[in-house]
Amino acid sequence: MSKPPASSTPPRPRARLHAPVDLTGAAARLEGGQAHYLRNVLRLPAGSVVALFNARDGEYAAEVADYGKHSVDFRLVARRRAPMREPDLWLVFAPIKRAHLDFVAEKATELGVSALWPVLTRHTNVERVNEDRLRATATEAAEQSERLSVPDVKPCVTLAQALANWPKDRNIVLCDEGGGGNAIAAVLAKEDLTKPWAILTGPEGGFSAEELDMLRKRADVRPVGLGPRVLRADTAAIAALAVFQSIAPDADKKPRFAPT
Amino acid sequence: MSKPPASSTPPRPRARLHAPVDLTGAAARLEGGQAHYLRNVLRLPAGSVVALFNARDGEYAAEVADYGKHSVDFRLVARRRAPMREPDLWLVFAPIKRAHLDFVAEKATELGVSALWPVLTRHTNVERVNEDRLRATATEAAEQSERLSVPDVKPCVTLAQALANWPKDRNIVLCDEGGGGNAIAAVLAKEDLTKPWAILTGPEGGFSAEELDMLRKRADVRPVGLGPRVLRADTAAIAALAVFQSIAPDADKKPRFAPT
Repeated sequence: MSKPPASSTPPRPRARLHAPVDLTGAAARLEGGQAHYLRNVLRLPAGSVVALFNARDGEYAAEVADYGKHSVDFRLVARRRAPMREPDLWLVFAPIKRAHLDFVAEKATELGVSALWPVLTRHTNVERVNEDRLRATATEAAEQSERLSVPDVKPCVTLAQALANWPKDRNIVLCDEGGGGNAIAAVLAKEDLTKPWAILTGPEGGFSAEELDMLRKRADVRPVGLGPRVLRADTAAIAALAVFQSIAPDADKKPRFAPT
Repeated sequence: MSKPPASSTPPRPRARLHAPVDLTGAAARLEGGQAHYLRNVLRLPAGSVVALFNARDGEYAAEVADYGKHSVDFRLVARRRAPMREPDLWLVFAPIKRAHLDFVAEKATELGVSALWPVLTRHTNVERVNEDRLRATATEAAEQSERLSVPDVKPCVTLAQALANWPKDRNIVLCDEGGGGNAIAAVLAKEDLTKPWAILTGPEGGFSAEELDMLRKRADVRPVGLGPRVLRADTAAIAALAVFQSIAPDADKKPRFAPT
């Protein structure tokens, strides 16, 4: 018979779940798909310990207390990590076909975006975006990558609508496959990356000439090039995010694993 | 009736195929899967124009002359692009599960690697690598991304074997999720990126302590960090490649589309 772990060592959580509920009290309840997942997929018995997190409260160890018909109740055991926000970096992107969209949502979440915003452009050939699916993909990526927040998924609008109400203090990195910009690393080296930013990428067919013209004229747009290679739309989004984060103010910090 | 295009405008190629054969003569033949693809998938009639390319000869417009039982014969019409090599950058990576492996091969090819080399590490939980599949994925990505070369896929060996025969002049960017390195952009800014390089990434479970210790002791290894976010193995590989290429000597060049 194997020895039980010493009581001073907290058990390693069996799952890590985003919990959009208050975690500062003695108990919490999750409903719907998350309850189903713990009971019917992971089959966790009462007494199992999981990690629950959200951006406001941080991350907590939580013990499964009881299952309801469509819910699960937890006893909150201990705080594992204090709340912490991701840098304020949006990815604004023309939606692409589904598998690539899932991929962009997953990788952008790992790379620390604070918001995902699909926008329709002239050459976008996707008719509608399943925002719930985007949100689910981003939530799962946050759960698996030790993030404490889930990126905000903004409702899909046209590029013109997005720019008409654009926030004053947020500059835009325009991934300009038309060759209108200098190398991304050189351009960003001259900018203040502690401020809010957005990275904007086009559809598979690229931005139209009119869109590029309109974008390049804006004072808040920085057109950049991603080098001599022809990148797919999804690759361009991920490459631009990776480069931005590699010179962002927190680039020299080490990975933040939760205690196990 | 629509007017036929003026004879001075060459027709846009109906497909772009890697052709590992001599393209400098008047004719060329492709066999097997590529012949099947043109005849049975694209159903291109004789007279259709495609683009054929390889690293040695460049890219050519080629007219389908005739189909054999398992082959297709072309008349070579005109050279579209002169040969050009990618920078000498290897991606050496612990193989991961299949969908993620396909993804790494595709994105790394777009991002311009000259070789893909799967290596088995202590915590690798993939038993064998389908090198033909890796090669097919890389070939398809090269065809779709206007590359003139297909990355070399090296036979899978252990990390120890790969390092035992490591070329003298090729430094290694070690993606060190253990926190042993400084920020990747800061580290690479001090290096000569015109020389041959390799980027080395670990498996989902990370490198073992012994592997990290052995790697960090080598004079040709530069341990780097990818920031405070926890990245999956595939994301780490793509992010490191994107950052490397963003400051590589050709980073300020514009995309190289072939004439259409």
